[in-house]
Amino acid sequence: MASNTGFQSNHHPSRELEGIAQKIGLRLEDRAFALHMDREDPLCHLRKEFAFPKMKMLKGVDLSIVDPEEDCVYFCGNSLGLCPKKTKEYMNIEVEKWEQTGVQGHTNGDLPWAWCDEVLDGDMAKIVGAKKDEVCLMNGLTVNLHLLLISFYRPTPQRYKIMFEGQAFPSDHYAFESQIILHGYNPNESMVIMQPREGEDLLRTEDILAKIEEEGNSIAVICFSGVHYYTGQLLEMDRITKAGQAKGCFVGWDLAHAVGNAEINLHDWGVDFACWCTYKYLNSGAGGLAGCFLHEKHFYSDLPHLRGWWGHTMETRFKMDRKWEPYVGAYRYRISNTPGFLCPSLKASLEIFNKTSIPALRKKSGLLTAYLEALINRKYGKPRTAGDGDGDNSHVYVNILTPTDPNQRGAQLSLSFSIDITQVFAELQKRGVVCDERKPSVIRVAPAPLYCSFEDVHRFMKYLDEALQALNK
Amino acid sequence: MASNTGFQSNHHPSRELEGIAQKIGLRLEDRAFALHMDREDPLCHLRKEFAFPKMKMLKGVDLSIVDPEEDCVYFCGNSLGLCPKKTKEYMNIEVEKWEQTGVQGHTNGDLPWAWCDEVLDGDMAKIVGAKKDEVCLMNGLTVNLHLLLISFYRPTPQRYKIMFEGQAFPSDHYAFESQIILHGYNPNESMVIMQPREGEDLLRTEDILAKIEEEGNSIAVICFSGVHYYTGQLLEMDRITKAGQAKGCFVGWDLAHAVGNAEINLHDWGVDFACWCTYKYLNSGAGGLAGCFLHEKHFYSDLPHLRGWWGHTMETRFKMDRKWEPYVGAYRYRISNTPGFLCPSLKASLEIFNKTSIPALRKKSGLLTAYLEALINRKYGKPRTAGDGDGDNSHVYVNILTPTDPNQRGAQLSLSFSIDITQVFAELQKRGVVCDERKPSVIRVAPAPLYCSFEDVHRFMKYLDEALQALNK
Ligand SMILES: Cc1ncc(COP(=O)(O)O)c(C=O)c1O
Ligand SMILES: Cc1ncc(COP(=O)(O)O)c(C=O)c1O
Repeated sequence: MASNTGFQSNHHPSRELEGIAQKIGLRLEDRAFALHMDREDPLCHLRKEFAFPKMKMLKGVDLSIVDPEEDCVYFCGNSLGLCPKKTKEYMNIEVEKWEQTGVQGHTNGDLPWAWCDEVLDGDMAKIVGAKKDEVCLMNGLTVNLHLLLISFYRPTPQRYKIMFEGQAFPSDHYAFESQIILHGYNPNESMVIMQPREGEDLLRTEDILAKIEEEGNSIAVICFSGVHYYTGQLLEMDRITKAGQAKGCFVGWDLAHAVGNAEINLHDWGVDFACWCTYKYLNSGAGGLAGCFLHEKHFYSDLPHLRGWWGHTMETRFKMDRKWEPYVGAYRYRISNTPGFLCPSLKASLEIFNKTSIPALRKKSGLLTAYLEALINRKYGKPRTAGDGDGDNSHVYVNILTPTDPNQRGAQLSLSFSIDITQVFAELQKRGVVCDERKPSVIRVAPAPLYCSFEDVHRFMKYLDEALQALNK
Repeated sequence: MASNTGFQSNHHPSRELEGIAQKIGLRLEDRAFALHMDREDPLCHLRKEFAFPKMKMLKGVDLSIVDPEEDCVYFCGNSLGLCPKKTKEYMNIEVEKWEQTGVQGHTNGDLPWAWCDEVLDGDMAKIVGAKKDEVCLMNGLTVNLHLLLISFYRPTPQRYKIMFEGQAFPSDHYAFESQIILHGYNPNESMVIMQPREGEDLLRTEDILAKIEEEGNSIAVICFSGVHYYTGQLLEMDRITKAGQAKGCFVGWDLAHAVGNAEINLHDWGVDFACWCTYKYLNSGAGGLAGCFLHEKHFYSDLPHLRGWWGHTMETRFKMDRKWEPYVGAYRYRISNTPGFLCPSLKASLEIFNKTSIPALRKKSGLLTAYLEALINRKYGKPRTAGDGDGDNSHVYVNILTPTDPNQRGAQLSLSFSIDITQVFAELQKRGVVCDERKPSVIRVAPAPLYCSFEDVHRFMKYLDEALQALNK
């Protein structure tokens, strides 16, 4: 069992679901079961905090086969979270502040532009298990990754490699590659790319640890994704961090898919640095302000970093005397002034997070995703013996790449199909199922626990059945 | 005369003003003269495109001495431009798109988030005299400066210096300093800091050129501000660029105060790189998307740069195959996905720019700022012979740091006073004059030609008189 998450290894949430179903005399497949679960869901009231797209508003939906007024099945919060309803109001406040007070908006209102990020980063820090001073909000994820690598990737002829996963998110891959080139090293010789074993889709902690043991002395930085964008695998961040640091490497994490989705304790785990975007499970809108974590232990280090006036303490920043007096903490990494219009949506979202807790979200998420998994496996799981099919879909199989262990995943399941996914995706889309295709061959579905319901899972299955039936005609 | 701007050296715009005044039988000091100028101003209709803060909405205004319903005198567009009225609508469209369509907003609407910057950068390019492919919109100014320096500042023991102005904007100063440190050089030995001559406030082109001649062989990068934030001086960008390049230096420009304020021809001048923010004369709101210019001649260069997925061509970006296929052009420098909520305001502003032209704006700006200068000089200019005062202000002098030559300045005038500016500033603020104090000793006033009127200049003078009278009591 991964030590960083809370599910008991002998109690898969699917067991809990089955137990409940038995107790109330229903099958998991029954809609009534899903409705029961929603009634019992302590977080179910949070759904109404979000604007749900209606079927009729979505491209690709066939309004002759669904109710135009119905909410879509939004399983795409791993790509772009839904809009918190308060966003519009908070955004409007900032626009009106600008209209009415011009430059004075820098120091007035709930989100004074001169420190609008600072109003939010305390709440942000809680979500990643950091101290407030260890976190800042700025730029985009990959920009922050670069800014952190400028400090932490200081290759020497002895220690010059960057270790990461083979199927890393392309932007991260490009970032690592270009940092290596920047320092005059050869990417081919300087990237330790961790691949799953032959025939497997997932990484094994033991293999990662063995690789660190083997190559650690020449590795400068280890930087994996906390939750993998393609497979949905949640890595054992604490163990990998410790193993890397034991070999003298700096260890950082890309938390794009982990933040708001998994329990993260950056401070306690002693992680050196981390970055994440906020537009996925954190619902800040496309290109929202990204996060940046610098562990306290580096507050007084002399690692070089790229400076800008927003990293200069506020007390003396406007003396304009060009004497560099940086903040102590992650703020030191801030460079440019903060975009005022990126804070309202994040504020709206963090307020919703403040109405619950990551453990409570995780608890629901474990059940919700296990429910989806169970329904998919029961109906489309492989291996299946010939003749047990239910109608004309019997020959379509769905393989779930994502780990079954709830401690090794977040909300997302990555599905591969025994038939062409492009068509499956199109048929799902016709029915108002919003999810995404990721090349080469996966459909990702993520019931985000903040706003998705058990009924959504049930509806997803109904639409998946219909989609596959349509393809079999 | 600077070759990069259009004012005839023998025809200061103040002459034109005096000519008009004479013709219509008024003095410059007459309110009727200001009103006449506004009536004749071909750009005067653009003012109504902007939301003007009212006196009653501003902090620090004493509503017993001004009309609460009156527009403020907004001379702060050099710091934060006013809000284009269309912003609210355009912002709302994006929020509603998110509410109604979730992730599909990436590819739908007027500003599809996946390429919302690309919709705008053609208009942006026109304003800086660049080809569309030479410009991209991303991040903040200082972040972009760093990204460009990563490419252009590649110090060697022979050529390792960065040349810039002594009173550089602090953020730029910190950026240069930290880049030097990043590469292991000593900032004290690696910064060629250009100071005005003893007793002078402004830089002389001849001195800059001489310095380039003298130290050019050891200078890697020259990077001045096109218009200086403190003095308002507009440098001869073309001559300095050519001189630097002749010595083998790369030459870049910080255009924060120049863009939308001066005529800029980055492409024709052969400038290597440039960056700017858009929240000043370009009215995009606090922390708006910044600009980045890469000259065409560098499109195929092998300068290293920091990579991210947004620099990867769209055609193959989502193949996710981790084969770096960058855009040809400035887009190559994009790293993270673009913030969707930073585009509506910029779009609203650029649409207004599209209703005029930089030469037309410059023409008005020349007159407007010359009008302000003339009124200040006539009333508060030094030297004054004893006894020519008008009442009890006779002993207050205002010194204008900014060059008198319209080819060497934009809209801004930087004023120093013979009395403490903190009090002057407070008294102006009481009367709804929005401008700013810049340490150590300057009040900056900038009648932005896009929305400020000759009447605003006249009102400013009235309030300045009152302010100084109040201080003399
Ligand atoms: C001349 C100049 N350079 C740089 C900056 C910093 O801009 P940013 O905060 O977008 O990095 C400013 C901001 O006012 C500026 O005036
Ligand atoms: C795992 C991961 N890393 C990096 C990124 C890139 O984020 P940004 O565009 O903010 O740099 C993403 C975006 O989806 C991501 O999923």
